Amino acid sequence: MSTMMTREQYEESLKRLKMRVYLFGERVTDIWDNPIIRPSMNAVAMTYDLARRPEYESIMTATSHITGRKINRFCHIHQSTGDLIKKSKMGRLLGSLTGCCFQRCVGIDALNALSMVTFDMDEKYGTGYNERFLSYLRYVQEKDLTCDGAMTDPRGDRSLPPHKQPDPDAFLHVVEELTDGIVVRGAKAHQTGAVNSHEIIVMPTLSMKEEDSDYAVSFALPSDSEGITYVIGRQSCDTRKMEGDTFDRGNLLFGGIEALVIFDDVFVPWERVFMFREHEFTGQLVEKFASYHRQSYACKVGVGDVLIGATQTVAEYNGVDRASHIRDKIIEMNHLNETLYCGSLACASEGHREPCGTYYVNTLLANVHKQNITRFPYEIARLAQDCAGGLLVTLPSERDFRSQDIGALLDKYYSTRAGVSAEDRMRVLRLIENITMGAAAVGYLTESMHGAGSPQAQRIMISRLIDMEEKKNLAKKLCGVEKGGPFV
Amino acid sequence: MSTMMTREQYEESLKRLKMRVYLFGERVTDIWDNPIIRPSMNAVAMTYDLARRPEYESIMTATSHITGRKINRFCHIHQSTGDLIKKSKMGRLLGSLTGCCFQRCVGIDALNALSMVTFDMDEKYGTGYNERFLSYLRYVQEKDLTCDGAMTDPRGDRSLPPHKQPDPDAFLHVVEELTDGIVVRGAKAHQTGAVNSHEIIVMPTLSMKEEDSDYAVSFALPSDSEGITYVIGRQSCDTRKMEGDTFDRGNLLFGGIEALVIFDDVFVPWERVFMFREHEFTGQLVEKFASYHRQSYACKVGVGDVLIGATQTVAEYNGVDRASHIRDKIIEMNHLNETLYCGSLACASEGHREPCGTYYVNTLLANVHKQNITRFPYEIARLAQDCAGGLLVTLPSERDFRSQDIGALLDKYYSTRAGVSAEDRMRVLRLIENITMGAAAVGYLTESMHGAGSPQAQRIMISRLIDMEEKKNLAKKLCGVEKGGPFV
Amino acid sequence: MSTMMTREQYEESLKRLKMRVYLFGERVTDIWDNPIIRPSMNAVAMTYDLARRPEYESIMTATSHITGRKINRFCHIHQSTGDLIKKSKMGRLLGSLTGCCFQRCVGIDALNALSMVTFDMDEKYGTGYNERFLSYLRYVQEKDLTCDGAMTDPRGDRSLPPHKQPDPDAFLHVVEELTDGIVVRGAKAHQTGAVNSHEIIVMPTLSMKEEDSDYAVSFALPSDSEGITYVIGRQSCDTRKMEGDTFDRGNLLFGGIEALVIFDDVFVPWERVFMFREHEFTGQLVEKFASYHRQSYACKVGVGDVLIGATQTVAEYNGVDRASHIRDKIIEMNHLNETLYCGSLACASEGHREPCGTYYVNTLLANVHKQNITRFPYEIARLAQDCAGGLLVTLPSERDFRSQDIGALLDKYYSTRAGVSAEDRMRVLRLIENITMGAAAVGYLTESMHGAGSPQAQRIMISRLIDMEEKKNLAKKLCGVEKGGPFV
Amino acid sequence: MSTMMTREQYEESLKRLKMRVYLFGERVTDIWDNPIIRPSMNAVAMTYDLARRPEYESIMTATSHITGRKINRFCHIHQSTGDLIKKSKMGRLLGSLTGCCFQRCVGIDALNALSMVTFDMDEKYGTGYNERFLSYLRYVQEKDLTCDGAMTDPRGDRSLPPHKQPDPDAFLHVVEELTDGIVVRGAKAHQTGAVNSHEIIVMPTLSMKEEDSDYAVSFALPSDSEGITYVIGRQSCDTRKMEGDTFDRGNLLFGGIEALVIFDDVFVPWERVFMFREHEFTGQLVEKFASYHRQSYACKVGVGDVLIGATQTVAEYNGVDRASHIRDKIIEMNHLNETLYCGSLACASEGHREPCGTYYVNTLLANVHKQNITRFPYEIARLAQDCAGGLLVTLPSERDFRSQDIGALLDKYYSTRAGVSAEDRMRVLRLIENITMGAAAVGYLTESMHGAGSPQAQRIMISRLIDMEEKKNLAKKLCGVEKGGPFV
Repeated sequence: MSTMMTREQYEESLKRLKMRVYLFGERVTDIWDNPIIRPSMNAVAMTYDLARRPEYESIMTATSHITGRKINRFCHIHQSTGDLIKKSKMGRLLGSLTGCCFQRCVGIDALNALSMVTFDMDEKYGTGYNERFLSYLRYVQEKDLTCDGAMTDPRGDRSLPPHKQPDPDAFLHVVEELTDGIVVRGAKAHQTGAVNSHEIIVMPTLSMKEEDSDYAVSFALPSDSEGITYVIGRQSCDTRKMEGDTFDRGNLLFGGIEALVIFDDVFVPWERVFMFREHEFTGQLVEKFASYHRQSYACKVGVGDVLIGATQTVAEYNGVDRASHIRDKIIEMNHLNETLYCGSLACASEGHREPCGTYYVNTLLANVHKQNITRFPYEIARLAQDCAGGLLVTLPSERDFRSQDIGALLDKYYSTRAGVSAEDRMRVLRLIENITMGAAAVGYLTESMHGAGSPQAQRIMISRLIDMEEKKNLAKKLCGVEKGGPFV
Repeated sequence: MSTMMTREQYEESLKRLKMRVYLFGERVTDIWDNPIIRPSMNAVAMTYDLARRPEYESIMTATSHITGRKINRFCHIHQSTGDLIKKSKMGRLLGSLTGCCFQRCVGIDALNALSMVTFDMDEKYGTGYNERFLSYLRYVQEKDLTCDGAMTDPRGDRSLPPHKQPDPDAFLHVVEELTDGIVVRGAKAHQTGAVNSHEIIVMPTLSMKEEDSDYAVSFALPSDSEGITYVIGRQSCDTRKMEGDTFDRGNLLFGGIEALVIFDDVFVPWERVFMFREHEFTGQLVEKFASYHRQSYACKVGVGDVLIGATQTVAEYNGVDRASHIRDKIIEMNHLNETLYCGSLACASEGHREPCGTYYVNTLLANVHKQNITRFPYEIARLAQDCAGGLLVTLPSERDFRSQDIGALLDKYYSTRAGVSAEDRMRVLRLIENITMGAAAVGYLTESMHGAGSPQAQRIMISRLIDMEEKKNLAKKLCGVEKGGPFV
Repeated sequence: MSTMMTREQYEESLKRLKMRVYLFGERVTDIWDNPIIRPSMNAVAMTYDLARRPEYESIMTATSHITGRKINRFCHIHQSTGDLIKKSKMGRLLGSLTGCCFQRCVGIDALNALSMVTFDMDEKYGTGYNERFLSYLRYVQEKDLTCDGAMTDPRGDRSLPPHKQPDPDAFLHVVEELTDGIVVRGAKAHQTGAVNSHEIIVMPTLSMKEEDSDYAVSFALPSDSEGITYVIGRQSCDTRKMEGDTFDRGNLLFGGIEALVIFDDVFVPWERVFMFREHEFTGQLVEKFASYHRQSYACKVGVGDVLIGATQTVAEYNGVDRASHIRDKIIEMNHLNETLYCGSLACASEGHREPCGTYYVNTLLANVHKQNITRFPYEIARLAQDCAGGLLVTLPSERDFRSQDIGALLDKYYSTRAGVSAEDRMRVLRLIENITMGAAAVGYLTESMHGAGSPQAQRIMISRLIDMEEKKNLAKKLCGVEKGGPFV
Repeated sequence: MSTMMTREQYEESLKRLKMRVYLFGERVTDIWDNPIIRPSMNAVAMTYDLARRPEYESIMTATSHITGRKINRFCHIHQSTGDLIKKSKMGRLLGSLTGCCFQRCVGIDALNALSMVTFDMDEKYGTGYNERFLSYLRYVQEKDLTCDGAMTDPRGDRSLPPHKQPDPDAFLHVVEELTDGIVVRGAKAHQTGAVNSHEIIVMPTLSMKEEDSDYAVSFALPSDSEGITYVIGRQSCDTRKMEGDTFDRGNLLFGGIEALVIFDDVFVPWERVFMFREHEFTGQLVEKFASYHRQSYACKVGVGDVLIGATQTVAEYNGVDRASHIRDKIIEMNHLNETLYCGSLACASEGHREPCGTYYVNTLLANVHKQNITRFPYEIARLAQDCAGGLLVTLPSERDFRSQDIGALLDKYYSTRAGVSAEDRMRVLRLIENITMGAAAVGYLTESMHGAGSPQAQRIMISRLIDMEEKKNLAKKLCGVEKGGPFV
């Protein structure tokens, strides 16, 4: 029997949390009803809702390898390349149904990375992290929890390692070791969906040396633990969500948000600590989480589907969809979008089994995929704006359309061909605005750039993972610099 | 002696206008104090302010060819390629000082186009349009007026010519001919800076045939003429301007706006009519205005200067400005920006004198320039987001920074290296947000795409203006398909 | 027991063929010793050689689904997505070991396409094509034959269908139907590796209507059948292969060639006819072959490996490999190359089983993959030329290096740092020249552009295969144009 | 009265030279009749021929500022921005008429650079270089000579300065100072057109320090001076020129070549020495020559004209010129080509007068222009190959077309629509091959990449020449980091 929550149960579960959240300089008390936050909760809720619909069962659920029960795939440890491929498809599906970042992939990526690194640490040190982790995993699976995977520290002066920072808290670290647990201080930035999560799983942000052992710490906590504060970031056009039930927001229901999460001397019990001073494993944990998370950018293919659909729709409304240049641009948008899809599938299809049993993506191809994610959505967005026409940015507000004085004039002058209402045209244009420069552009563009590592991070990984010696040998043999070519 | 207005005089002059303006469904009565509109008036005011400063005199002013007086260059008819080149430089200068669209170039482009087309109509028909126009020009120069150049009609069903539209008003047209003037009805969309202008100069939007003669009309009117209504369009992040004196707006002072301008049976006296049913000249007027206006996109080079400067600044604040990949990306931004500059200079430098004496840009190169404008700013913006880092879109509001509760924490966690205040870092990030996805992105990106004609319009012109026969001859002679090569 | 030929047996088998081959206006009698043709035979020979080496067994061989014997994968009908993935890897492997087009993939693609289409025709018409085909397949597998898959007709006036051509032979067609077979006339252009093949499998070149039934014909013949003539095309730098054992050729051993294959009233016995006037199935056969063949462009990833290796090598020789811009360009080359690899893997991984049992690639992704192949190799080649330096094109001949008079001077002036011989530097530069503008550029660039269909062919397929209605629905629901969104 | 040579006189003058030239390991005695070299002489001859035709007089000739006589513009010192603009137009013109590198621009660029640097050295040191130079210039102008401008040394180990090289001759240097002159040793690589020049003007290759004073030397010599040896580099498809009067060569008449020029203890009389140990001026001389020479890449716009013309022609022959995607690709080719033209015009138009009176290009824009030259021709070439079709690389030889056996068959199968001969189609395809991967690709692509400095050289210059402080100020003022914005 499944323990998967319904969408309503998810909402109820969030309401029971007592998070300390700030927005626009004020503490938010009614998180679940806040118009800025609500759309992001709606998006997470979709991950619950779809998992219970038969048509999405194969993609959205999996069988737990520890309990044998059907669980939400977001709580699953990948047991095959098939699982990895379904994760990519789940990302595209949810992106396409929400048109935004649905914020739950950080959790699955953190869980899978920890499933491997806790195992490997135990292998080396005889520690018991993996058992702790599996016990935690069982809890997450049974309760069907949403977990935030928190990695990025503020980092202060980027030219200095953690222990040399003027402010030691620039990286999150252990400030006290107690008999029943540890106390940590610091912050995690850019935490997508943190305020919609039940749990927060903290990991170090970079590969560390011995001097930084205090910073080599990983743990999980309920998101409303004492001492944790969330400060929600502003997004382009964020306050349109506060303007009421207007189509000016573009996406009527969904949206992502990010928060700075501050840990002000927060206590973590030992059973929730998954790494403690094993600095040699920080690099591995970062790389494993990052690789999984780079795969996760399959979601942008789904948002691309929405943007392409909106572009095609407005082209039809404008009566230009048969123009060869419009058709070609829409083909190009699709081509780029499906090229991205290829990357997310290929790194999954080429995944392999790690010693602990978890399946891990092909790291090189996951980095290649993410690198394209830092480029193609921008070009897709540019082409969308090209096809949409200038009205995209000169359109009056919905209130003008509803105005007694001028509403009829707007309806008159924004009508195009028979059978298309000016209002529908406006709605679709607002959705394109939303994805290409509004609130969803934060996720579709800028987060595509920097989430799971900025472009240069992927380039460094690509550089490391390519076998240049082999390639040099191939060349040298063909031109005769080295003997021993194929036929000799 | 010059009659150029001071910035204060310009503001006073606007206050005297009685325009009918709508915004957010309400009529705006205090246009000059409206927080959404004010930044755009500030930008236009810069065109007055700079013209009176000695250091900018050479670029910002010219000598009127009809009065011999020093005038603002925006009221000038180009008398040499040097004038055209200075126009390009004026655009870059103002873009760099305002970081946005300063909205006055439509006027100079309309005036120059009419200076040629009225002359040519008179040559053909013996009409007196040019004299009328010159008399109007003298008035504009003496009063130092800002003119909106209004071309784009809503166009209804784009597959139909004006006279076949279900709604005949989809294109602006003459509805009545009176002894002292004409009555017109219709609308002009996407009118940048219309509400900051003293005058509105109307031109037809496309090349017309005889059946569309009623639509072949050009005229000028005071912007607060009876029957004209302005509806201001929404922009990304527009309401941040209403949040008070916050740095969340990015650009503290300047911004552009666009409006739909509706002509509801508006009377135009004969002395202000510059084209009346001469449909054969509509194509020429459109092409002339468009070519000049494509040159005008030199302004985006100036906005690019600001964005590059902001990117370099935040890279320094983040301590990553010495990283080779950041340096290379900033070089690329500059390279693209200067390539755009080359286009705006080349089409001016290759300009020529028309029969009426006005200098006209090289049409082919002006189209080539504008085509690049539809591409490079998007890539420059993408690179800016790459270099700026993810904080660009996860940054809390200024109110959070000022908060008693959490302000100090934000200051702590957003500090980087010594000597850089977290606040300065935030300010610059907000400016990058403003230009790449906020209110100024409307001008820097989407208007770059569609202003002065969408990309396909330029491609059609490039296709028409290239001498393909000559190129084919060159090829055929070199490979021997045609005899008569160079040495034969 | 395997019947796979050795490399020597392959060469012997070719020598037994009596093909009618023309090159430089002369009939070639000693095909196997012709210096232009030999490198292409060497490349095909690698497909035999590797299949017998244990380290490549998994990739290069398969188990025949009709005989259960181990066969060369190039003769195999795909029985799983795993088979499809291995085909992609086989392509990369061979490309990387030969640095050129190895010419045998047209055969596997033709065989797999016919395995499906003959089955489907039988299903519809009760014909016996599939049995004929399987019998032929068994022959090919047992003899381990190389098959040319011949599709592209000369096509004469491209605006006309086959039956309306001024010259009816512009498309290959049946000219006579006999009791024991048929007689065909026409030609197939751009036949890569035709003269190295034992068999030629002919397929129609486009989707046909009833009027073109005479042109709806598919069959297989021994390549030296009576009436078949081959005319070998010129390639860039082809004659360097005739200059003897010089490193000026870049790739010392391998190279591809193409031929025009003319069928001058050639007799085909019925047991080798796989389609005869079933015009409704021409489109399917074209699409199936094309999709498989678009996947086959995994080979260019292997050639990319060689080019990247050569570029890295020459950068090291030149002492510039640590320069950040060189490192970044080589990362970019790898990034693009691996992005191509993702496409070839993804279309395989997303393959599916057809009714006949054959596994077929995902058509959409195969087209997306091929589309990228028409772009990225050009950019990789450009970057290679950037990193290689100008010496790439100003390097004297090997004969100059061997010259008594000036050899020592060249050695002196082309030496760089200690430990690198001028000769090795020259060899690698010649290899880069070979791939980016010499004989191998024909395969790496121009064939990447046009092989398996020119870019526009893929764009048309992408356009057809994308489900735009679904995407429009997604968009319309999110912005409220359509009700019935996720939560309603 | 003009002293400009005719084309015939130029040829005669070359025949009188006794250069020591090697090609394919043999000394070439009959340079003017060598089939590899002749096309490059033909191209230079065009610079003489056109200068005497009235229709090109304005572009091809100028009035000497020292003699007041009409001279070939290639011997002229720029006296205005108009002169600079005409230089750009002359480059395009010659590129379009020859379809290749015409090799004479290095001379004009060397002369102009020396006109400034000799003046500046004299200003600082009271030397008499400028007088010497002017006397030499008068000689060049009166004799109408072609000068090679030789800058690039082999450079040995690129991580070491000249004086630390294992082989001191890796950079050209003074080996002896005599009373009547100096003796130099070393080499200059990649010398385009050296063997077609009357004079060779040597300049140092990089900015030098005091320790490298021996390498700080500039001088001019007759190209057949004792001790100078030329070794001609191989080009793609070079030997097709030796195959007789065949259209397989693509460009029937013209082509460029490059040579390594070796100075083996060559004597230079003092009156031809223009720099001798003034190491502080080496950087300036390099930069001045490089900037002029980067402007010179206007020539590639002319070659682009030919390639576009050939592409349009073959599209018409193939009957696909009306296809929207072909039209769009040809528009794109033109757009890119004209964007390049804008760069070459803009750096000229923004030129300025130096103290010595010479007009100098805008260095920033010249570098921006050249940077685009390293990119766009590759994309134009890729598009040409796209439009041309695969026949481009599978076409048999002219000898096959002339063959008794198969000529008629080729004619039959390569015919397209009525009115187009198969032969003409072949000729144009060969021309496209020539420019995109054959002998002319050396000039159009690889030389575009590396000539006048490789891409990174331009990026370094762009980085240096941009005023980043000004841009940072603009940004800081707009977002309030710095006070003192426009209205304060």
